[in-house]
Amino acid sequence: MNNFTFFNPTRIEFGTGKEQLIGQVLADHGVKKILFCYGSDRIKRDGLFTTVTKSLNEHGIQFVECGGIVSNPVISKVREAIAMAREHQVNAVLSVGGGSVLDSAKSIAAGTLYQGDVWDLFNGKGKINAALPVFDILTLAAAGSEMNSGAVVTNEETREKFAIGSAHTFPKVSIVNPVLMQTVTRDYLVYSAADIIAHSIEGYFTARVQPKFHSRMAEAIINTVIETTETLLKNPMDYDARAEFAWASTQALNGLIYAGTGGFSYPNHMIEHSLSALFNVPHGAGLSVIIPAWMKWYHGRKPEQFQRFAKYIFGVDTPEQGITALEKWFDKIGTPTRLSQLGITEDDLPATIENILGNARWFGIADIYELNVVTAILQNAL
Amino acid sequence: MNNFTFFNPTRIEFGTGKEQLIGQVLADHGVKKILFCYGSDRIKRDGLFTTVTKSLNEHGIQFVECGGIVSNPVISKVREAIAMAREHQVNAVLSVGGGSVLDSAKSIAAGTLYQGDVWDLFNGKGKINAALPVFDILTLAAAGSEMNSGAVVTNEETREKFAIGSAHTFPKVSIVNPVLMQTVTRDYLVYSAADIIAHSIEGYFTARVQPKFHSRMAEAIINTVIETTETLLKNPMDYDARAEFAWASTQALNGLIYAGTGGFSYPNHMIEHSLSALFNVPHGAGLSVIIPAWMKWYHGRKPEQFQRFAKYIFGVDTPEQGITALEKWFDKIGTPTRLSQLGITEDDLPATIENILGNARWFGIADIYELNVVTAILQNAL
Repeated sequence: MNNFTFFNPTRIEFGTGKEQLIGQVLADHGVKKILFCYGSDRIKRDGLFTTVTKSLNEHGIQFVECGGIVSNPVISKVREAIAMAREHQVNAVLSVGGGSVLDSAKSIAAGTLYQGDVWDLFNGKGKINAALPVFDILTLAAAGSEMNSGAVVTNEETREKFAIGSAHTFPKVSIVNPVLMQTVTRDYLVYSAADIIAHSIEGYFTARVQPKFHSRMAEAIINTVIETTETLLKNPMDYDARAEFAWASTQALNGLIYAGTGGFSYPNHMIEHSLSALFNVPHGAGLSVIIPAWMKWYHGRKPEQFQRFAKYIFGVDTPEQGITALEKWFDKIGTPTRLSQLGITEDDLPATIENILGNARWFGIADIYELNVVTAILQNAL
Repeated sequence: MNNFTFFNPTRIEFGTGKEQLIGQVLADHGVKKILFCYGSDRIKRDGLFTTVTKSLNEHGIQFVECGGIVSNPVISKVREAIAMAREHQVNAVLSVGGGSVLDSAKSIAAGTLYQGDVWDLFNGKGKINAALPVFDILTLAAAGSEMNSGAVVTNEETREKFAIGSAHTFPKVSIVNPVLMQTVTRDYLVYSAADIIAHSIEGYFTARVQPKFHSRMAEAIINTVIETTETLLKNPMDYDARAEFAWASTQALNGLIYAGTGGFSYPNHMIEHSLSALFNVPHGAGLSVIIPAWMKWYHGRKPEQFQRFAKYIFGVDTPEQGITALEKWFDKIGTPTRLSQLGITEDDLPATIENILGNARWFGIADIYELNVVTAILQNAL
């Protein structure tokens, strides 16, 4: 096992009704005025906005609304929000939504205290030395952003989807109430399942140092996601399944299954980021297309690990059978497995490949993911 | 799943050579003078004391030595150390050792800032409102104390082995270097294996609310302990096995496998605490005797979970076969499975049972663990 530091200071408040604590939580942290980030007006229609503002008012927390954050969040919106945060002199950022809103909130929190343009923090020109404290109420379990310091944002001008991460951008408190996720659409449920599985397998398959304990933990997450997704497709109101799905999602990306592993990369995310940046496809939908295509190209490099996956996830014998089983499972739950299902055709490949090759430099794996490799993977996905 | 709060602010520094960071770590936390707690003089003979004091000196950290802390640590020693901490006005406590030293350090840290007698904090008369910061260098992986807020200490006068826990007693930083554990004796390795398995199964079998995700995580820990113990018995110098064993031990008791479960208890620990308090047997050795005996009495209450255990841990079919397999595995690795191996005879049972019944009140499960139940379990262990 490699040497590592594990530190995760985020407090998770998990369960029914926990969103009602938000005013108290902010007051406990000495917060007086927040930037209240959210996505669509759905939170106003379904009552969550009212619940949150009632709690804020009860504790005398002022707020400035910043709605309209979209999936695959964009840097222009982050810049706009930073201007608002500065103008109104907020002393914290609250995210109410899924990973896109939370990733934006982290970016806003860091960007507000950074002197230059916030994109510098993404492309390596600048460094995060401080950030406003971030709090969140999660409404979609997928990104795992609620218990880590990362944030992924798209630059619409440069067509880049890049990430930040820093000890300063862990949420202080994340509120995870599975009830708030019971109205997630069927599509977003299955995209989320693909996203969590992607988080679990990137290190699992690519790490040069991958202890068996870590593989077992990743398998615990994947098996839980598979089982609870099937339950939720039958009964979206099954609270326990929703809760296990959400908690597995958190564990997939809070550092637990990566601590002590080494030499791993995120090839599926790298490729998918280009699909999101160029075609604005949902992140999880892009992943469920890329994962089997990538696996078909990659499995010969890690035959034993793919055999493990086949055995402990699907109860089949060979790497190839494991990959087929995953692809069939994606088909069964209704998340795409072909680029054509995303409206991407062979004509789109050259521009897509060019964008991916740019990502490969940023992801530090350009030596592996060069032209003919990326082409081969995308052709597997046609 | 039950509602829960998950918060674990301990920073883990894991890997080779990490103990050399201790001076820097303390300096980063503004510490000037520490109470340096340890057990036997072994750390002076094997060079660890020199490594630590060199690092302390380099960073100008003063220290007051408090050696001689024994396994099954005792409250008289904690009281003595509190007097030293006050006299020398230390502003932190450093533990260099295993769970006994660390549990003592936490108790000292809390007791130093408590106005009354420290045992009040154990028996419920007092409350922990503050504690000196605790740091540790772990030399034995078993207790899991390095990433939680708990501490267990024995009162020699009252023959009680009780626990404290508080948001104030999480270690700030725990240094876990598997190399320091390579000289652990064969006996203490197998006792430790039994201890970690005990931490993993208490909730696994007793929880009224036990999500399958949590069962899978517990099984990942148990399977890792079984596999790495066997490797280490053949080759104590196998670094990777030592590292996986240690990290599994940390995960077993840092809250991960309990968050969201409900209605669980620690019957095996409750019974074992009496064996330690009365006969000073090693904690893990007591546990490996009690666990199979308890399982034989208990399994009918949770047949499905015992079937899961049989299947996913030992690949056998029935609850009874699973229990037999565990007992045989304990025999195979050489940790006791009979009271007689601990030197405890039938004549000792009345006093033992009386002590356990006292614990049962403190553990809050006196309604289940009454006279004839405890008698039946101990008779299974004769």
